Amino acid sequence: MKKMKNQITNAISDFFFEYETPRQVLVRNRRVGVVCRLIQLGVLAYIIGWVFIYEKGYQSTDTAVSSVFTKMKGVGYTNDKGKERVWDVADYVFPPQGDSSFVVMTNYIITEGQSMSKCPELPGKHNCSSNTDCEGGSFKRTGHGQMTGVCVNTTKTCEVLAWCPVENDHIIPDPPLLISAENYTLFIKNSVTFPLFGVTRSNLVEGIDASYISKCLHDPEKAPLCPIFKLGDIVKLSGFNFETIAKVGGAIGIVVDWTCNFDVDVRHCKPKYNFHGLYGNPTETDKARASVGYNFRYAKHYLEDKIQKRTLFKVFGIRIDIIVQSLARKFDIIPTLTAIGSGVGIFGVATVVCDLVLLYLLPKREFYKNMKFKYTDTHIQDPDSEAGSIETEK
Amino acid sequence: MKKMKNQITNAISDFFFEYETPRQVLVRNRRVGVVCRLIQLGVLAYIIGWVFIYEKGYQSTDTAVSSVFTKMKGVGYTNDKGKERVWDVADYVFPPQGDSSFVVMTNYIITEGQSMSKCPELPGKHNCSSNTDCEGGSFKRTGHGQMTGVCVNTTKTCEVLAWCPVENDHIIPDPPLLISAENYTLFIKNSVTFPLFGVTRSNLVEGIDASYISKCLHDPEKAPLCPIFKLGDIVKLSGFNFETIAKVGGAIGIVVDWTCNFDVDVRHCKPKYNFHGLYGNPTETDKARASVGYNFRYAKHYLEDKIQKRTLFKVFGIRIDIIVQSLARKFDIIPTLTAIGSGVGIFGVATVVCDLVLLYLLPKREFYKNMKFKYTDTHIQDPDSEAGSIETEK
Amino acid sequence: MKKMKNQITNAISDFFFEYETPRQVLVRNRRVGVVCRLIQLGVLAYIIGWVFIYEKGYQSTDTAVSSVFTKMKGVGYTNDKGKERVWDVADYVFPPQGDSSFVVMTNYIITEGQSMSKCPELPGKHNCSSNTDCEGGSFKRTGHGQMTGVCVNTTKTCEVLAWCPVENDHIIPDPPLLISAENYTLFIKNSVTFPLFGVTRSNLVEGIDASYISKCLHDPEKAPLCPIFKLGDIVKLSGFNFETIAKVGGAIGIVVDWTCNFDVDVRHCKPKYNFHGLYGNPTETDKARASVGYNFRYAKHYLEDKIQKRTLFKVFGIRIDIIVQSLARKFDIIPTLTAIGSGVGIFGVATVVCDLVLLYLLPKREFYKNMKFKYTDTHIQDPDSEAGSIETEK
Repeated sequence: MKKMKNQITNAISDFFFEYETPRQVLVRNRRVGVVCRLIQLGVLAYIIGWVFIYEKGYQSTDTAVSSVFTKMKGVGYTNDKGKERVWDVADYVFPPQGDSSFVVMTNYIITEGQSMSKCPELPGKHNCSSNTDCEGGSFKRTGHGQMTGVCVNTTKTCEVLAWCPVENDHIIPDPPLLISAENYTLFIKNSVTFPLFGVTRSNLVEGIDASYISKCLHDPEKAPLCPIFKLGDIVKLSGFNFETIAKVGGAIGIVVDWTCNFDVDVRHCKPKYNFHGLYGNPTETDKARASVGYNFRYAKHYLEDKIQKRTLFKVFGIRIDIIVQSLARKFDIIPTLTAIGSGVGIFGVATVVCDLVLLYLLPKREFYKNMKFKYTDTHIQDPDSEAGSIETEK
Repeated sequence: MKKMKNQITNAISDFFFEYETPRQVLVRNRRVGVVCRLIQLGVLAYIIGWVFIYEKGYQSTDTAVSSVFTKMKGVGYTNDKGKERVWDVADYVFPPQGDSSFVVMTNYIITEGQSMSKCPELPGKHNCSSNTDCEGGSFKRTGHGQMTGVCVNTTKTCEVLAWCPVENDHIIPDPPLLISAENYTLFIKNSVTFPLFGVTRSNLVEGIDASYISKCLHDPEKAPLCPIFKLGDIVKLSGFNFETIAKVGGAIGIVVDWTCNFDVDVRHCKPKYNFHGLYGNPTETDKARASVGYNFRYAKHYLEDKIQKRTLFKVFGIRIDIIVQSLARKFDIIPTLTAIGSGVGIFGVATVVCDLVLLYLLPKREFYKNMKFKYTDTHIQDPDSEAGSIETEK
Repeated sequence: MKKMKNQITNAISDFFFEYETPRQVLVRNRRVGVVCRLIQLGVLAYIIGWVFIYEKGYQSTDTAVSSVFTKMKGVGYTNDKGKERVWDVADYVFPPQGDSSFVVMTNYIITEGQSMSKCPELPGKHNCSSNTDCEGGSFKRTGHGQMTGVCVNTTKTCEVLAWCPVENDHIIPDPPLLISAENYTLFIKNSVTFPLFGVTRSNLVEGIDASYISKCLHDPEKAPLCPIFKLGDIVKLSGFNFETIAKVGGAIGIVVDWTCNFDVDVRHCKPKYNFHGLYGNPTETDKARASVGYNFRYAKHYLEDKIQKRTLFKVFGIRIDIIVQSLARKFDIIPTLTAIGSGVGIFGVATVVCDLVLLYLLPKREFYKNMKFKYTDTHIQDPDSEAGSIETEK
């Protein structure tokens, strides 16, 4: 019992008072030395320069949860066949509540006074020469309603049960009716939270206060932090021509880029605004052909003389998607040590490469082999027998 | 001065012309050799086969920012007590502007001609036998309005100030009124940008041009890239029965999966469309019980004889969420070297395991210990005295 | 030919029957031993304790794709100058279809009976003393319409073509008209899918069934899993005062936090609900100043005596963003081995540190250097000549 205790104590004290370090051969050879030192310095430079300084491998990263609120301002004006009217925010923004993705109407085809009844289809939609061409009760996917089975003589198209008169969208108004949309302004409020680092930021950063907002207008050079954007500027910065996009519609992404380094003061964490066309960009010619523009239909319903009617709008507009992209970095011990540990591993690779040079390529390789290796047994393979030829070092 | 300079020059030339490599024992022992080589080969196979080939550890990854635009087409038809009407896109899609998340109405309960007045609650909502059961001015969370304090004799329910007559949603139309929704089609436009790699892709990939779109219909086997989907197909592919979901509503996720490898041509980066039920999936029986279906209410307001009225719809519908999931990979030097470095580390673990076998398990362990280790001092512990017993190699 | 085959066979058998292990010096020195062992134990404790246990470095992680559906319930009541009315869900929620981001109206400024005509601007908006101050055909960004060029004498403001009468939003109703919104309830349905692990969860977890939902109300302590929230509670938990936020509006984020460990039973994967103010939080005083509250405008259109009219609402409300944040973890062999490999690398760093102590700081350093290193050549640098001074071990 006492003996065993003694043994354990000895083992522990041996463990703590001993230290093993690998024995090494110091090869004094200019060629090998220079080659290997350069390889090792290269690895070191890579680890320090690239992993640590350039890629900031000592930091952990986090993306943000974010919330966006938008508000358009400005008034549009149309003069359609002498009928003047103005369009305010409640008229031209869909949806109205300030979402991060919305549409600004820039052109429209209006079909007033539609009611549920029977009328002929548009010329070209479903042509017919007699009633047999119009199967009653059936639909056409791109048609306006259910066929009644009658071929209308005057238009040579099938009669349908639909909201009548049916919309004629063959001719898109050109120039766009609401070309004045160019002067609308967009205000973006964006709040981001990095949950890992516990930091919340708003795009109304330090210095962007009420008095500044009331008079500023975003400019990539002069006012990069102003959160108020002219619609015409947005379109231009994303590579579109305003008149083209206003006519047929299109989609634009506004990327709010939060790339932050929390090792420096949090005040340096500021948003960058980038603009790019999402669809219908005229430079993407082949894709544009497949599906041009951006439009949707909506209706205003009303009652006239006890009859339900609606005014149908085919709205062409600029869809704006506010996309928040975020990447924050902060010093963290885990990635630091992982990078160091992995770097030491790569150092090991450098040693292996140099050893290969030393042992297989140099003229003196046999000499170095003898220096590096000690053989337990050179002649007879005699495993597991304690006795036998014990090869000692030459 | 000169001496010191000399010393530094010497130290530098020593550093560059020397190279140290660990001295090693070459153990000629079949058992240990085979075991260790197999362990080492296993580690090597793991690093190359698993980390590099299977998990593509030599690539860095990125997720995309994306933008989705949707467009429904098709016409529905209802015949409610002889009153025929058709429903077009402006009638059955909420919201109208082509969002990535929207609802297609498939069934509804209509309450026409509501105006602000006083009327009895629904039977079963708030029963009463006398006025004392109806506390004037109070609300019931699930009720329709504010109680006036009167118990209506004919219905035996409390009278409320509300949009009257109150909606009766006890009976859901069955079969669903807009069962023809099955033939509606959905067109999805999706654009993704991988900011790290600077690549932008659209789901209208090469070959999906205007002429193809005009006649194709998505099919998982025959037309996996066609961006036009039949609503009935979507429902079927996500595991629902159309008549069930059309009656009470439900939610379906369409996952657009962009898993791309940018080490090959960017043209191979194509979307995959997957469909799955989000709520009310009949196979998730226990969850379905908790909250069945999908419905919401909206109202159309109008003026009749100078009185504000509204038509209330309780809409049952299929909510479709387009979810973009993306993961792009491309060769990058950092993850490659990190994987190699970490692999060399694991190699070190293999060496440690083999050493344990060699030094503690083999019969000849004492012999190998002597070969491997050189002791600085075997007899007396005499730290830090330069003199003393210098143990030389046996 | 035979000879070559023989050679290859020999090389392979040599490779498999040999095993090299580094030769080491066992330094018996208390100081070095204790220091180095402590460094090594520290590294080991870091790897096991921090990387594995605390940071769970043996697990791979995944974020979820999610879908959210919301439903408000409750009835509001206003008494505006004796005109009683109630507000139900179809009246106060924007948009109606149950999106993850929506606005609950709590206060409003109503402008009834607007029609397209000419009327003077609001006092303060565009003052004038004569017609020359009002440039006909021009707009003011924050104005209501297009100037006609006339200065109206009675108000001393320019006349505009606009929806008339123009809205006067100088006075915000106080107390808010729909203060009863405090008692509305919000029901959240949330489904998350972790694609990497193939797990789908709903916030209606085990035990949250229909009967529980029908009577529960969320409480951070007593009912943390109940998915029904009182609006007043949400506002309070996010640090707002209800009367303040109800008057001018504000934005609140409800974070549904899915932090799951799939190494234990999937039933333990439950959501946590957190609430925080996004804008207009009174504690963020300096930001609040820049842009206070949350409001938007929308209009109800109708026809009166063949004239298109609209009722304009300036809606002040609480915008609620449901933000799903997810992080699932599960054991995976790759991160485990990467962590081990990287840990072994850090062990190597410890050895380097100890060697520096041993070889450069200890009094007996020259002795240890001799033990550790073997020199190939001490006197003459004679590279690549097989002959020459072969330095043997002392």
